[in-house]
Amino acid sequence: MGEFGLIELLAKIAGQLKDKSVLIGIGDDAACWRTEACAQLATSDSLIQDVHFTLSTTTWRELGWKALAVNLSDIAAMGGFPQYALVSLGLPGDIEVASVAELYEGMAELARLFDVSIVGGDSVGAPVVILSLAVVGKAQTTQTVLTRSAAAPGDRIAVTGYLGASAAGLAMLKKGLEFDKETAATLREAHLKPHPRIVEGQALARRGVKAAIDLSDGLVSDLNKLCKASGVGARLFTNQIPVHPVVRRSFGDDSIELALSGGEDYELLFTAQGEVIDKVRKAMPCPVTVIGEISAEPKMVEVIDEHGNEVRLEKEGWEHFV
Amino acid sequence: MGEFGLIELLAKIAGQLKDKSVLIGIGDDAACWRTEACAQLATSDSLIQDVHFTLSTTTWRELGWKALAVNLSDIAAMGGFPQYALVSLGLPGDIEVASVAELYEGMAELARLFDVSIVGGDSVGAPVVILSLAVVGKAQTTQTVLTRSAAAPGDRIAVTGYLGASAAGLAMLKKGLEFDKETAATLREAHLKPHPRIVEGQALARRGVKAAIDLSDGLVSDLNKLCKASGVGARLFTNQIPVHPVVRRSFGDDSIELALSGGEDYELLFTAQGEVIDKVRKAMPCPVTVIGEISAEPKMVEVIDEHGNEVRLEKEGWEHFV
Repeated sequence: MGEFGLIELLAKIAGQLKDKSVLIGIGDDAACWRTEACAQLATSDSLIQDVHFTLSTTTWRELGWKALAVNLSDIAAMGGFPQYALVSLGLPGDIEVASVAELYEGMAELARLFDVSIVGGDSVGAPVVILSLAVVGKAQTTQTVLTRSAAAPGDRIAVTGYLGASAAGLAMLKKGLEFDKETAATLREAHLKPHPRIVEGQALARRGVKAAIDLSDGLVSDLNKLCKASGVGARLFTNQIPVHPVVRRSFGDDSIELALSGGEDYELLFTAQGEVIDKVRKAMPCPVTVIGEISAEPKMVEVIDEHGNEVRLEKEGWEHFV
Repeated sequence: MGEFGLIELLAKIAGQLKDKSVLIGIGDDAACWRTEACAQLATSDSLIQDVHFTLSTTTWRELGWKALAVNLSDIAAMGGFPQYALVSLGLPGDIEVASVAELYEGMAELARLFDVSIVGGDSVGAPVVILSLAVVGKAQTTQTVLTRSAAAPGDRIAVTGYLGASAAGLAMLKKGLEFDKETAATLREAHLKPHPRIVEGQALARRGVKAAIDLSDGLVSDLNKLCKASGVGARLFTNQIPVHPVVRRSFGDDSIELALSGGEDYELLFTAQGEVIDKVRKAMPCPVTVIGEISAEPKMVEVIDEHGNEVRLEKEGWEHFV
């Protein structure tokens, strides 16, 4: 159908999402929108076939959702409001139009939930499917942006929601593990349709939290990044980790490992003084669990088990190029 | 070196470009900058190995330059000011750090020319090299944005600069054609280090031009897109096309074909009433040539040769997925 047809298809699906700030949407050289004076946020992230997903276990609709979700999660981790998305698509020649339409529908479904306008896109030939998205949004104020570099010794470390279900879902899909229908659906959705914590990130920012990161590579790996950016260390207590109940039930002893280093939960990890976290917990629309504390030294993450012993993790989390 | 090292490398190179509006650059979940009330522009575009370039003829530095240039050219085609760039990189595991550093240096070199801050980036594993960039900028006012849809019957069609040198450079590199040193350098630079017409696009917008597109796929192909978006037709006169003199000298009879359908010249094609174009021509820092006219009917591009006969082009221009 040619590049032109694909862009028209996206324009049609995205057209339903266009808000009144958008002056020029898909189909011109660049998108154009009206903005107020503010602190703007922008992020970009790519999903690449057979690196981040396989078409044998992922539907096109789920893929579209997830490609946008991982970008929205970055905006959530700043406490911001996502507004505009640009979609750069790489496609092998044999992909069917109906598949691309499904992909766009999956994106549009999530975009609609958070009032995100898909304002731009291009499509190019590629040896594998590539989804490169960029999302622009705004912060409430320059003072309320959550950063990786604001953690301080004495802070408690907390996470939203439950951990491990995405990695458990990936293991299920990869190894063909069989579970009852409800468990399988929960794990599949956790891995393929993560819900970015947009509202929660905004609530954290509004209530005085300063430091946060979203959990994409894995709890320990992402906490390490936050510690490195803040110049601090951290102690994590395994018996406080909110392992997803479905994972605990289905994966037994392996579940803590999935929660610590599985990755792609897209929950928010944040740090603040105990009283701030107490306040936050009451106001949040999701569970908030304290799982550790920030320390001045050593500048690394220590994982402590229920007997007070340090645990050595086999795999810290999924890092590319390792 | 791992993803973290690559991002740090980019942060170091990009750090030199950070302007004072940037509150948070590379290394957090999202970039953050302060913006005024304005009409914002955003575009994204990807270059993919063995689709858009080959590493056997392109240096990493040229590749970095070009990946940013094609995005800046989209902002130029809107008459805008590019401000912030996000870089999403896909890399096979065997790429050397020194190569990635060169790539970033090439981007930084061009970014510096136009005061663009590289504010974000991520890198992921990939089967081939993928450069997905997004650029955010601003327009002078909402009234001065150049669009593809503003061409009107009676408008003259004009282009900046000379055409065909990029496609000639590609032909030279692909077929190993030999030319004298100066010719070879000119053609190589035209293909691998295109200069986005930022200043020229701004001048067009300021002087009353309304319709423009940048030449990426080819003169006829891109003019077709502009006509389609504007609901008009066009007549192009081959004897008025400003074929690059070096191409004319080196490619003889083939040079007009390279200029009409070669693509990737990244010049601006624009339309306006004759008197507006006369005014623009005097003010522009580059050659401006009238090459045809916009018509009400038929809704297509007719290419007319020096005898007044319509020319049938073998290949309209390079379209993906054809």
